[in-house]
Amino acid sequence: MNHGTIRLYSYWRSSAAYRVRIALNLKGLAYEITPVHLLRDGGEQHKQAFVDLNPQQLVPVLLHGNRVLRQSMAIIEYLDETFPAPPLMPATARDRQRVRLVAQMIACDIHPVANLRVLQYLERNLGVDQAGREEWIRHWIRSGLDAIEETLADNPSTGTFCDGEQPTMADCCLVPQVFNAERFGVDMAPYATIRRIVQACNVLPEFIAARPERQPDAQAQ
Amino acid sequence: MNHGTIRLYSYWRSSAAYRVRIALNLKGLAYEITPVHLLRDGGEQHKQAFVDLNPQQLVPVLLHGNRVLRQSMAIIEYLDETFPAPPLMPATARDRQRVRLVAQMIACDIHPVANLRVLQYLERNLGVDQAGREEWIRHWIRSGLDAIEETLADNPSTGTFCDGEQPTMADCCLVPQVFNAERFGVDMAPYATIRRIVQACNVLPEFIAARPERQPDAQAQ
Repeated sequence: MNHGTIRLYSYWRSSAAYRVRIALNLKGLAYEITPVHLLRDGGEQHKQAFVDLNPQQLVPVLLHGNRVLRQSMAIIEYLDETFPAPPLMPATARDRQRVRLVAQMIACDIHPVANLRVLQYLERNLGVDQAGREEWIRHWIRSGLDAIEETLADNPSTGTFCDGEQPTMADCCLVPQVFNAERFGVDMAPYATIRRIVQACNVLPEFIAARPERQPDAQAQ
Repeated sequence: MNHGTIRLYSYWRSSAAYRVRIALNLKGLAYEITPVHLLRDGGEQHKQAFVDLNPQQLVPVLLHGNRVLRQSMAIIEYLDETFPAPPLMPATARDRQRVRLVAQMIACDIHPVANLRVLQYLERNLGVDQAGREEWIRHWIRSGLDAIEETLADNPSTGTFCDGEQPTMADCCLVPQVFNAERFGVDMAPYATIRRIVQACNVLPEFIAARPERQPDAQAQ
């Protein structure tokens, strides 16, 4: 596809960057990755070169030609409006509400509460030890996944994917969140619908290529 | 305007409910409010009658006819798609990205980190005292407003409002966040652009009618 150059500022294990990588792959868009190491040397996201791109000092940032785009859901909707096929949003206002709902249940109410900067504040300002921080992470992930499972299960709009038979922005958010849940040892047994959807996503090449361990900046564990 | 019955489950001081009240008022839609008292009796949002509407146990919930809508930004976009005039989103993909960006800088990265349920976890599980919790709130608000001020200031797309000359979803999110900032004593002096925009909003009847102290469930301080 002919389009302006696309560059993603990404960190392999960033959940928000992972969402955008999935969306770019689903759109079939070629892009280059500039890794931003969130931990090395105090965090490259805090260096002036990156702050000039994003005063929030968070990944991802997407450059599309000379446009600087930020916030993963806003980036995905932009990609969907700019490169309509295949769609990442459903056709009706009712269904779009539902896709945004699931995406926001993750991108507002799970992920930012347990993000790196919050964990660093818990550690440095409140003296919360690693066990306490990991329990914090699991608490918010479980609380969010409980509600998402209830939203998706036994709902006629739920299909192979979060909404119907094609991946949408909701799946772009769900898969990275479940990756994080497993990373931190959340018991996924209660989430049958979520597990089924994530399995359906994770056999698709667009989702596989976006996985953290496939990224150029991935590190041995 | 002729439309299905609209009912908002709201709490007067909830920042997310406040966003939706502004959007409904800007659309000129009549709606009834069902108050959900977030503190009384262990929190009415945790009672089964409300959990049946929202397994996340958060306000707001909007009923539109028989549709149950959740997540404030997803609700506002639904309202904008369903009742197009006046628009709460700009006309181009580039500008919509920018409005969603500002909205998400607030609704993802400030508000959920300092929401009631997080403060309750800090208090009950981690023993953080009131002074520590209020410093937590101010820290995340300041960090977010710093980045928003930089995003809005000296940007040609910024107008009387966050994006151009009409209120958008970004303003629906910004005004409640600044209300919260002032409530918790954040020094607003560094945020000249934000203050100017919020002042422009807060003289409009649609924003005035949405204010917490104007709500049926508002309490004397």
